[in-house]
Amino acid sequence: MHRPTVRVSELPTPCLLLDPAALERNAARMASRLRRHPGVALRQHVKTAKSPEIARRVQRALAAAGVPDAGVTVSTLAEAEAFAPSFAGPLYAVGLVPAKVPRLAALGGAGTVDDAEVVPRLAEAVPRGLVLRLFVELDVGQGRAGVDPEGPRLPAIAAAIAREPSLALAGVLTHAGHAYDARSSAELCCIAESERAGAVHAASVLRAAGHEVPAVSVGSTPTALAAERLDGVTEVRAGVFVLSDLFQSGLNETPVEDVAASVLASVIGVHGERVLLDAGALALSKDRSLDGQGGGYGEVRALDGSELPGRPRVHALNQEHGFVRWSGTRPEVGDRLRVLPNHACLTAAQHHAYHVVEGERVLEVWPRVVGF
Amino acid sequence: MHRPTVRVSELPTPCLLLDPAALERNAARMASRLRRHPGVALRQHVKTAKSPEIARRVQRALAAAGVPDAGVTVSTLAEAEAFAPSFAGPLYAVGLVPAKVPRLAALGGAGTVDDAEVVPRLAEAVPRGLVLRLFVELDVGQGRAGVDPEGPRLPAIAAAIAREPSLALAGVLTHAGHAYDARSSAELCCIAESERAGAVHAASVLRAAGHEVPAVSVGSTPTALAAERLDGVTEVRAGVFVLSDLFQSGLNETPVEDVAASVLASVIGVHGERVLLDAGALALSKDRSLDGQGGGYGEVRALDGSELPGRPRVHALNQEHGFVRWSGTRPEVGDRLRVLPNHACLTAAQHHAYHVVEGERVLEVWPRVVGF
Repeated sequence: MHRPTVRVSELPTPCLLLDPAALERNAARMASRLRRHPGVALRQHVKTAKSPEIARRVQRALAAAGVPDAGVTVSTLAEAEAFAPSFAGPLYAVGLVPAKVPRLAALGGAGTVDDAEVVPRLAEAVPRGLVLRLFVELDVGQGRAGVDPEGPRLPAIAAAIAREPSLALAGVLTHAGHAYDARSSAELCCIAESERAGAVHAASVLRAAGHEVPAVSVGSTPTALAAERLDGVTEVRAGVFVLSDLFQSGLNETPVEDVAASVLASVIGVHGERVLLDAGALALSKDRSLDGQGGGYGEVRALDGSELPGRPRVHALNQEHGFVRWSGTRPEVGDRLRVLPNHACLTAAQHHAYHVVEGERVLEVWPRVVGF
Repeated sequence: MHRPTVRVSELPTPCLLLDPAALERNAARMASRLRRHPGVALRQHVKTAKSPEIARRVQRALAAAGVPDAGVTVSTLAEAEAFAPSFAGPLYAVGLVPAKVPRLAALGGAGTVDDAEVVPRLAEAVPRGLVLRLFVELDVGQGRAGVDPEGPRLPAIAAAIAREPSLALAGVLTHAGHAYDARSSAELCCIAESERAGAVHAASVLRAAGHEVPAVSVGSTPTALAAERLDGVTEVRAGVFVLSDLFQSGLNETPVEDVAASVLASVIGVHGERVLLDAGALALSKDRSLDGQGGGYGEVRALDGSELPGRPRVHALNQEHGFVRWSGTRPEVGDRLRVLPNHACLTAAQHHAYHVVEGERVLEVWPRVVGF
């Protein structure tokens, strides 16, 4: 960890800032919600923050609240390799292919599968002497990966795993990604319950067929925060809660002030109401998850993070230019601003480190895991 | 330069592939077009490829065609620092702020300015003993940065530069970014001519006021390829031509086979017509420049780059998942495919290196410049 002596006004722009107090509030909120469900662990998804330093803050919040820690979920093997030395897991929660098995098995990681025909090919790819743990992925309505919890493919996959000495059934897993499309907290609760019910049902089907099902894994940030009951579930996976963003703030009714990561940008042009920033598509990403809520590529804030009149957004992007329609007192070229991200996972992925700031001070620089 | 012995079938996915033959064709095409305009140099924009190895191939194509080489254009100081040791320039073509002056001036680089009030602040930021060269940026219709070539702000900026001993007028510069919205080659030619005429007029205004104007710099890939005349212009800036992409291919009527960079992906799920790839928003970017032309996030091709029946596209993205509607013979989990990018600048920026491939062989790995 590099401890710089620079101040925010001296950082090169664009760069990624992190508000550690917001981070702590987000971690505490998730821990406090999960505390309502005794025995249910968090297996934090590190694909958002991609930072061991941040993952450790989440662990501390879990410990403080007495919530069990199930280690980490990852979405790239680069994350798996970066986190494996100091975190339990990793669970690689993207459909596994034979070519990725040796790296994952060598780390003691777990993978997912949703196709019985793939199982023998995964088994064959496990290096001699190792055993790879596999979760059977379920589709509870997202329409991405996974099998129907009620259909015949589920027991066929478990049976195929049981036939392979190099494989072990780790459990069942689902992700109600359609929770991101929920229009009300009632709908969100309903999706959370269908996620829970689907996973618990699948586990009972496999147990009735004689399989041990150690883990029943569900989750997404919105369903983890909204779930009213989690009985039968052993672990929840969630990631974006720790940074939060404009989309999550709207969906989960959490304060915009808890958006922990933002992009520091310089004003590089003032042309009447058109203000140009040096944060463009590369610094912000082209995520458009706010298209249904006023659009744009992020909300522009003052350097200290406070709201600006009219809450301007970056309304258009070129590679290194962000366009803002400015209604208040015009800034000057060289002034610094912050942009709150629409979608923290994608904006943060454009940067290699967090500059952890408190007021004008840069406290620390925390590297991010990069690559795939 | 790292020379690996792996084959394409052994590369971890997702990763970025480069077809060196397509690269050579693209470089030769630009050199051949510019050869029509004797004395006009190329100052290649390295923001697309961000690779010294690729920039050297462009230099060779220029030399072979007898086209002058004006060095490099950059859009980040990270690029400026990476290219400065071995390439003339760099010209940092994003509006300059005082805080960026010391790094740029130390490299012998040039910047741009479009506001007379900013000039003294840039001058003050130049380290003692150095002189920073500045281009005055013109707006010829894009509506981003720059001043009107016919208005009073242009001579005021040149006069402000002339008053500062630490600054020197490098020339005038414009970028007809609105060329990307052209609907016909006739419209493109017309925009190219207005780009040329605006820059040449601005230079004549400044010369009439007694300023030396060494460079008259215009460009974008579409206008550079479309321009019928470039008299009065000294250099053209263009970058994306070297990799090309689906959008450029449509706009500039160049073969899709000349799209030089693609993303190697694995099939991670087959659910009826829904095929999932491990190339999602992080591997492809969320660029939607094909929204007006069938949409999606890239065209899926066979491993060898050949067309697939129905020319499927990635129609939706999650962070590490790409969704494809498949109409032909279904692939298997673990099969490898290529995705041609909508917008090469943004897709390539998601990766740290090119895997230079010829058939099944990985010839070399070329690093990309990362960060800002």
